Amino acid sequence: MSDAATPGEFELIRRYFMQDVEPACRSDQVSPQQARAGVVLGQGDDCALLAPSPGRRLAVSVDTSLADVHFPRDASAEAIGHRALAVNLSDLAAMGARPRWFVLALTLPEVDEHWLDGFAQGLYGLAREHNIALVGGDITRGRELSITITVHGDVAQDGAITRHGARPGDLLAVTGALGSAHGGLRAWFAGQRDEQHPLVRAYLRPAPRVNEGMSICHMVSGGLDISDGLLADLGHLCARSAVGACLKAGAIPLDQALVASLGADEALEAALNGGDDYELLLSLAPDQEAAVRQVLEDLGGALHVIGLVTAEPGITGITSTGRGWQHFHAQDQCPDDHGAGAAP
Amino acid sequence: MSDAATPGEFELIRRYFMQDVEPACRSDQVSPQQARAGVVLGQGDDCALLAPSPGRRLAVSVDTSLADVHFPRDASAEAIGHRALAVNLSDLAAMGARPRWFVLALTLPEVDEHWLDGFAQGLYGLAREHNIALVGGDITRGRELSITITVHGDVAQDGAITRHGARPGDLLAVTGALGSAHGGLRAWFAGQRDEQHPLVRAYLRPAPRVNEGMSICHMVSGGLDISDGLLADLGHLCARSAVGACLKAGAIPLDQALVASLGADEALEAALNGGDDYELLLSLAPDQEAAVRQVLEDLGGALHVIGLVTAEPGITGITSTGRGWQHFHAQDQCPDDHGAGAAP
Repeated sequence: MSDAATPGEFELIRRYFMQDVEPACRSDQVSPQQARAGVVLGQGDDCALLAPSPGRRLAVSVDTSLADVHFPRDASAEAIGHRALAVNLSDLAAMGARPRWFVLALTLPEVDEHWLDGFAQGLYGLAREHNIALVGGDITRGRELSITITVHGDVAQDGAITRHGARPGDLLAVTGALGSAHGGLRAWFAGQRDEQHPLVRAYLRPAPRVNEGMSICHMVSGGLDISDGLLADLGHLCARSAVGACLKAGAIPLDQALVASLGADEALEAALNGGDDYELLLSLAPDQEAAVRQVLEDLGGALHVIGLVTAEPGITGITSTGRGWQHFHAQDQCPDDHGAGAAP
Repeated sequence: MSDAATPGEFELIRRYFMQDVEPACRSDQVSPQQARAGVVLGQGDDCALLAPSPGRRLAVSVDTSLADVHFPRDASAEAIGHRALAVNLSDLAAMGARPRWFVLALTLPEVDEHWLDGFAQGLYGLAREHNIALVGGDITRGRELSITITVHGDVAQDGAITRHGARPGDLLAVTGALGSAHGGLRAWFAGQRDEQHPLVRAYLRPAPRVNEGMSICHMVSGGLDISDGLLADLGHLCARSAVGACLKAGAIPLDQALVASLGADEALEAALNGGDDYELLLSLAPDQEAAVRQVLEDLGGALHVIGLVTAEPGITGITSTGRGWQHFHAQDQCPDDHGAGAAP
């Protein structure tokens, strides 16, 4: 009963999930690459043994991706592997943490080695990009495909970006276009199966803002990643920081492809409520804006100021026409708006 | 699509999985108890922030427990919660690591708050016993009940018990009776639903040998926990240590209730191949036997020497009658057996 998948589990792990370990080092030895990554003992024992960097905080997060709940089961295995790790790396990005190690728990309805090979390619492709080492895994046989990843990163003491640091008067900003992933999901369900389609790609292969988070963590007052949708995640930031917010609809960055696909109104709705964007939502003091923008532009990204943190609780929104939208009070101007950042 | 369970997720976590956090500390504050446990920032942000102990290694392991694969779906919620954490704590025990933190990913077919309450009681009951803090979680809605836990412990540099340390001439020993869990599983399927029945209890509520592992980690040469069954796990130890083993059947500790339930032959078979015991299998130099035994007895446990590590690969077994058994070569005496430990 306990070993539904164990006959092949060790071999599957050895074959697909020890790709960064030289074959000669797959028993008790640690490869030079692992040692540089702080891996004292990797896969194959009861636990991985890791060497945390002295004086830094360990950042840990877990996320489950379920087939046909968090991703379409018929997406490519590469995309599924990429996406499962990306949504976890985004949690490290949201704290400004440096990726270190992750463990993978995989539940498979069947052992399809072609699929596993593709999945591992997607996973390792992103893992190498962000220098995070797979140090442990568990494979079980179950009715539905489920991927649970626990990521570990580290961050300087007092260097972490948190949800409780936003202060009235701070600017609210995001690191990239919103709504595209939601547009991609809709396109997928409408039959668009080209994974290189810009919106589909935004949904299936999000690029977690890891380098951005690490580079600006000391310059912002608070933040998180946008996974549930801008309004929902802004709500989390406001609740934890005991503040409110005023959003400027016209300043929310939208991809041209999204506007072309959905029209302006639905594109804005996707940006507000769609989710799965994995951009960072940041609060920062106005005098930090230029410096943060410079850092992000040096990384090939951008800073889009979309509103202000207010002392009064609740989220209000203004459009260029003065109309409000769902969940929002219509008003003409954000309170305490002295013209900083993006005018609508 | 990404938020199948999110409407209630935050509230469920707050209600059931923040039990060690005072209500006043459930936003950005860390309770004194959390601070003592090295928790800098607990649940509610994108990551938990943790303070590893300087100079110690971090031990990390992940295990998934699936309904009707790893536990019977109709067991009590308390037992399911206990067992899911126990099998993970056992991996820390197997390394000699001190439990620190864990994260929980829970996939639920339905939100049954009565069940969640019981599950959390079982989980927290064992967590408090072993002083491990729940620092993060993810709840999703899926077709089958699945519990994935990632545990974190720490251990002194060079203090970890590993699978590659067994040396020829070492004694092989276990920390308690084997086969009982398998007997309990069989009793369960035969209709025995009393969770206090000694065999059923051994299966549903294993007691991970955490204190034992921590106390003897510097005194043994190698080891692991017995989850797949004595022969399978001994095989892992031998493979990683590049050694063989000779087992003495008569020395393998069996619970009286197991022998009474299955008879002597099937009880031995359950001990060899049944799995789910979560006792430790240890290798130790003969001159350490008395000291290890004393430590384990001081903890209320015992040391049962069941064989010897051999230079020759392969596992051989002897019975008191000289008969071999499946997977074993029959022989009269372990090689290099100078009478140390348990004679058959």
